[in-house]
Amino acid sequence: VVSSSLETITVRTPSLSYQVHIGSDLLESIGSRVDALVQGGLSSGKQRAFVVSSPEILAFWGQKLVHSFPSATVTLAVPSGEQGKRMSTVEKLLEELAELGADRDSVLVAFGGGVVGDMTGFLAACYMRGIRYVQVPTTLLAQVDSSVGGKTGVNLAAGKNLAGAFHHPLAVYADVSTLKTLPPAELRAGLQEAVKAGIIRDPELFALLERERDRVLSCDQAALIDVVARSVRVKADVVNADERESGVRMILNLGHTLGHAIEAATEYKQLLHGEAIAWGMLAAVAIAKRRNMVTVAEHDRIEQIIKSFGPLKRFHADPAQLVSLTAKDKKNRSGNRSFILPRGIGDAVVVKDVTVDELTFTAQRMMAMVAREGA
Amino acid sequence: VVSSSLETITVRTPSLSYQVHIGSDLLESIGSRVDALVQGGLSSGKQRAFVVSSPEILAFWGQKLVHSFPSATVTLAVPSGEQGKRMSTVEKLLEELAELGADRDSVLVAFGGGVVGDMTGFLAACYMRGIRYVQVPTTLLAQVDSSVGGKTGVNLAAGKNLAGAFHHPLAVYADVSTLKTLPPAELRAGLQEAVKAGIIRDPELFALLERERDRVLSCDQAALIDVVARSVRVKADVVNADERESGVRMILNLGHTLGHAIEAATEYKQLLHGEAIAWGMLAAVAIAKRRNMVTVAEHDRIEQIIKSFGPLKRFHADPAQLVSLTAKDKKNRSGNRSFILPRGIGDAVVVKDVTVDELTFTAQRMMAMVAREGA
Repeated sequence: VVSSSLETITVRTPSLSYQVHIGSDLLESIGSRVDALVQGGLSSGKQRAFVVSSPEILAFWGQKLVHSFPSATVTLAVPSGEQGKRMSTVEKLLEELAELGADRDSVLVAFGGGVVGDMTGFLAACYMRGIRYVQVPTTLLAQVDSSVGGKTGVNLAAGKNLAGAFHHPLAVYADVSTLKTLPPAELRAGLQEAVKAGIIRDPELFALLERERDRVLSCDQAALIDVVARSVRVKADVVNADERESGVRMILNLGHTLGHAIEAATEYKQLLHGEAIAWGMLAAVAIAKRRNMVTVAEHDRIEQIIKSFGPLKRFHADPAQLVSLTAKDKKNRSGNRSFILPRGIGDAVVVKDVTVDELTFTAQRMMAMVAREGA
Repeated sequence: VVSSSLETITVRTPSLSYQVHIGSDLLESIGSRVDALVQGGLSSGKQRAFVVSSPEILAFWGQKLVHSFPSATVTLAVPSGEQGKRMSTVEKLLEELAELGADRDSVLVAFGGGVVGDMTGFLAACYMRGIRYVQVPTTLLAQVDSSVGGKTGVNLAAGKNLAGAFHHPLAVYADVSTLKTLPPAELRAGLQEAVKAGIIRDPELFALLERERDRVLSCDQAALIDVVARSVRVKADVVNADERESGVRMILNLGHTLGHAIEAATEYKQLLHGEAIAWGMLAAVAIAKRRNMVTVAEHDRIEQIIKSFGPLKRFHADPAQLVSLTAKDKKNRSGNRSFILPRGIGDAVVVKDVTVDELTFTAQRMMAMVAREGA
């Protein structure tokens, strides 16, 4: 099988650079690509590639990936789902790596969605104080967002992703072919992060998503490559400018302040991440409209595209609880509450003066919309 | 109280620089020193200094440290001892920090021995993907070695320090006054790491330890400042040259390959770290003598000084088991076994050709010495 087209985007950080490859039928060549990246090759010395993946992804795509490696790989299975994304799972995997004889030259392969990627990245960050890994994201959410940027980690009882590390992969391989086995709801949820990328930085991506909605939803490979590549470029541009999220990188969190609050309020069980972010973006754009940072037309266009990748799922939460949960956001510093607001389509800013009243207004409005339109 | 003398050593890494201050009666000024280091001061915004310490150290020295801060601090207690240095303890502390409202501007203060320092550093590395911390080491081992260099982490069932991160402190404050409450066995064990520093890089430190043995053992403050400062300078020089232990930094592990094996074989319960390292150094210098890398006179001088900071504690282990445990050393890459050997006094090298026969010889010789001379 020949890859139809391959897009390559370079992420440049002060500490290192790496490439994100986006294409279809990529799995078949990932092993040899990783082998070429690793000095001396993977087959020198003892076994050194460890694939970390979920049982579902291994069942669908495991053979293709594993056979692409020139030498034997070891496979570690992790539970899928946010519930398993905990320190205890990481500790178990660390023990397994040690028992299997992984050393500082070993390379981990994160093969799965965001949970697998975040956890495997953190595993690589912690094992022997840091070994190499590559990301092979198999969900749209992971391809457009979480596999790029070096953020790794796990959840605490106190909040999502509160423990972790910045640890960049050697490379990212996003094969849109794997999206064929993705549940349609996850495809739609992942598209919300692509919508986010369009809103904050790329009006052409936004227009592409409006224009190609049906092709994208039917898993057209060329359309998906375009969407993923443009989304990754947005993320890479922002990360390149701000590796550690001290400034501009925070705009990637559009919709996430309330989105995270929704996920926390529903205990990460009722909504997919992208679905929570969709509701959060609707709330953010409502504040932006109220502040005249977006026109009514822009507001409606944003609301329309978010809903077009719905149906947005219903959930139960108390607006006041959502507001108080935003106080725990990691982006807050020294008690200041940060919030990301769109400024038209293709631009967004970090503001620190969103009041509790504004948050309450938008949370109430959002919950009314949930009651009225949630599926 | 006026500090008698204050030595300051700068650690320079590619990523950042920080200072190690060594003196007596330092605790009283640490809070205001940290406050001055943190942009805007600790008292701006909400509470942001979190002291992590053991119950013992808090009982002896907690008041002095806590009162040195211009604003209130929060204290988190951790169990002392290697057994508690685990992921589960770190996770518990992460949850506590979150509950207490620590944010990205918070500063942790690692106040205790190596276990507290390693765990607090890792806690700081992981909390919200990295916050700042300072080291206030209160054992000689932590002052001369573990508080400097940015290595943080916890133990796995499979081995010591197998999980962790490189995360440098903002500053290190080593107050030798705190050594007055250190159990004498821990003082002697810590001196073995100072001996190590002398062997690998500083013949004057080696001679100082020979000459000032009695003053040092009686906790003479000026002598201790000299020993700690010279030892830290060795460590800083080596770390400056090699932040991530890809090359020269490995010489800091003289005595550690077998030392770690001894600790693993005795389940970290029978020996202090420095005591295990002392036995490991005796084994390494025996290999070096057999290879003619040290003269008989140098060998005897090294053996003599190590024993002079004894008595070295007895332990039970099978030589063959010790040899097989060295195969798990983190320094091994792609199956190659690395070993550090002295080359005279004040010099050491990393070798990769130590054979199983040599290891077996030296492990057997060492166990015979344990049986004959162990206390």
